Amino acid sequence: MDRQDIPPIRRAIAELPSSKIREVANLGTGMDGVIPLWFGEPDRPTPDFINRAATAALEAGHTFYTLNRGIPELRSALAEYMTDLHGQPIDVNRVSVTASAMNAIAVIMQSLIDPGDNAVLVAPLWPNIAACVRIMDGEPRFVALQTEEPGWRLDLDHLFDAADERTRAIFINSPNNPTGWTMSGEDQRAVLDWCRARGIWLIADEVYDRIAYSAPRAPSFLDFAGPDDPLIRVNSFSKSWCMTGWRLGWVTAPEAFGGTMEKMNEYNVANAPSMAQHAGIAALRDGEDFIAASVERYRRARDLVFQRLRALPRVELSRPEAAFYAFFKVDGVGDSLAFAKRLVREARVGLAPGVAFGPEGEGYLRLCFAAGLDTLSEALDRLEPALR
Amino acid sequence: MDRQDIPPIRRAIAELPSSKIREVANLGTGMDGVIPLWFGEPDRPTPDFINRAATAALEAGHTFYTLNRGIPELRSALAEYMTDLHGQPIDVNRVSVTASAMNAIAVIMQSLIDPGDNAVLVAPLWPNIAACVRIMDGEPRFVALQTEEPGWRLDLDHLFDAADERTRAIFINSPNNPTGWTMSGEDQRAVLDWCRARGIWLIADEVYDRIAYSAPRAPSFLDFAGPDDPLIRVNSFSKSWCMTGWRLGWVTAPEAFGGTMEKMNEYNVANAPSMAQHAGIAALRDGEDFIAASVERYRRARDLVFQRLRALPRVELSRPEAAFYAFFKVDGVGDSLAFAKRLVREARVGLAPGVAFGPEGEGYLRLCFAAGLDTLSEALDRLEPALR
Repeated sequence: MDRQDIPPIRRAIAELPSSKIREVANLGTGMDGVIPLWFGEPDRPTPDFINRAATAALEAGHTFYTLNRGIPELRSALAEYMTDLHGQPIDVNRVSVTASAMNAIAVIMQSLIDPGDNAVLVAPLWPNIAACVRIMDGEPRFVALQTEEPGWRLDLDHLFDAADERTRAIFINSPNNPTGWTMSGEDQRAVLDWCRARGIWLIADEVYDRIAYSAPRAPSFLDFAGPDDPLIRVNSFSKSWCMTGWRLGWVTAPEAFGGTMEKMNEYNVANAPSMAQHAGIAALRDGEDFIAASVERYRRARDLVFQRLRALPRVELSRPEAAFYAFFKVDGVGDSLAFAKRLVREARVGLAPGVAFGPEGEGYLRLCFAAGLDTLSEALDRLEPALR
Repeated sequence: MDRQDIPPIRRAIAELPSSKIREVANLGTGMDGVIPLWFGEPDRPTPDFINRAATAALEAGHTFYTLNRGIPELRSALAEYMTDLHGQPIDVNRVSVTASAMNAIAVIMQSLIDPGDNAVLVAPLWPNIAACVRIMDGEPRFVALQTEEPGWRLDLDHLFDAADERTRAIFINSPNNPTGWTMSGEDQRAVLDWCRARGIWLIADEVYDRIAYSAPRAPSFLDFAGPDDPLIRVNSFSKSWCMTGWRLGWVTAPEAFGGTMEKMNEYNVANAPSMAQHAGIAALRDGEDFIAASVERYRRARDLVFQRLRALPRVELSRPEAAFYAFFKVDGVGDSLAFAKRLVREARVGLAPGVAFGPEGEGYLRLCFAAGLDTLSEALDRLEPALR
């Protein structure tokens, strides 16, 4: 064996693309003064009241393994939080704590996708979802959102037509990263009905549910789904409570799926970090003011970014009603990765290339506006010459 | 569709056994006064100096996503720690931080095992390893350790004979959970030579490396492996530094495997918890006295447990030279799960049934002696009548 070689890696893994967002970020990380708006992450650290709960948990000795599906106090707090928020009783037995929404989606795909199975994904979409399907030798099938005034639209017939007898799941991320597209409650009902009738799982990634600008929260499948509906709903503490580093999320699913979550957590990461789970209780209990203030801050950022970008003739975008991204098309840009790299080098602003979210996103750029107004103003000043 | 039904789960997942250790623990958790020695976990919480480092990290705002392979400061600290410990230069580019050793093993198996591939595992063994292979539709092939005065022994010919053209990895957990078996450096060299010659990965799970009673540490593959050898060595902060709840581990592998670790972390859990990574730096820097004191405490516990168990005519065990388990055979016990449940009900002591570690462990029980001497004395007082 050539000493430079290593033994085989699975083809599915070797062929997994690296993140194109990270490719841009890697280019810019060594440079002075680049304004980084490439990642999907709030710019503020976790609020103190949440940190203090973690510190108290450490001091109280909560440093041991927990139950695979999470500590009972957090599961109860989540059930109460969702019951209040959605006006529907959510039983604690439907709730599993996970080590991030990402990890939840990974173990869910591991639970559902055999080689040759497929999952239907609405795109553009965060690329990690398709990666989880590919890791299981499954086929991600993309159904494109359509741009249409005043925003993005999903044609449900296109969605349903993409499914066949090997379809194990429909995956809906609403509010959507990167477009901000938010599915209506009416469409949600139609999709869940369709899945229920066919015995196909509906995986709903609702991590941006609390970051909504025209309502206190985005429509959720939990607003109407029954406890035994084939819904696996994923959420996270990362975006609403600025807890990206903590790796804490949760799944709400039929009680009959709980045993699978328990086993898959055990055989993947055992449990979410113990101190993060205690911090999560504080976030749920005392976090509403923080969420409200964050959304107001993002709203002002959105308005600034939207007004300034739409004033540029080459730029097309719709006003995002949720999440914290401006996803905009630039006339004449065919290679968004090359263009994003050019913006880093020449404008010193870091954006995510649209193609990172699938071919449906080519020609677009994503700007994360979870940042201060001064930072965003400066970034727009720098971007405008390149986008004119 | 019957409303009680849910859509299909993969057969490989539905057939995954639940943990038999947890089955015993579930029985005992509701009972008063059961002494729990079933899990593989130190009884002491994380030491304060490590907790304080996490608190400081939170206060400093280290609450964001980190690089997939971990923060550079922790990776450097790990490279230095291993370079010192093993007397071999370990380059930082070989090191990837993971969200626990469990998560590392899960993503490693996802990277290597296609359907129908196999991994050769030395058993008895922590059941989660085989589960990771089965999740990928792979075949775990067990090679049994043999009992032999004064301890356990692996026949290398048996190990090599179990491999065939579909073998993607040999998995060695030494020091071994549950037996305490520790592979000699000589045998380690023979196994690595064999893997190198055949282009087969060697996965070395060395999470108990610092808990050794006849040497400052157990022999490690890192004592002699070259930087490009086909070795993936897994370790954890859980056992040595009492950090089970934190979910922090690391992988040392050829630099050419680093891209796979980066992608697989990204698509599984993104990164180990940020505050845990900062805590890990403190553990490495200031943790040697703590490890030494812990091992002395476990040594006294081991001596007590060994002396009292070996005095029982029905009990057979060898003295563990590493890890913190007494793995003993009880004459006349054919069903270790039923017997462990009986011990919970009648003796109020919680042990892990040997069959949880594979059929090779049937007839055995595992007692975790990472506990105080008073607790262990009381547990032995209660166990003796049932084991006589």
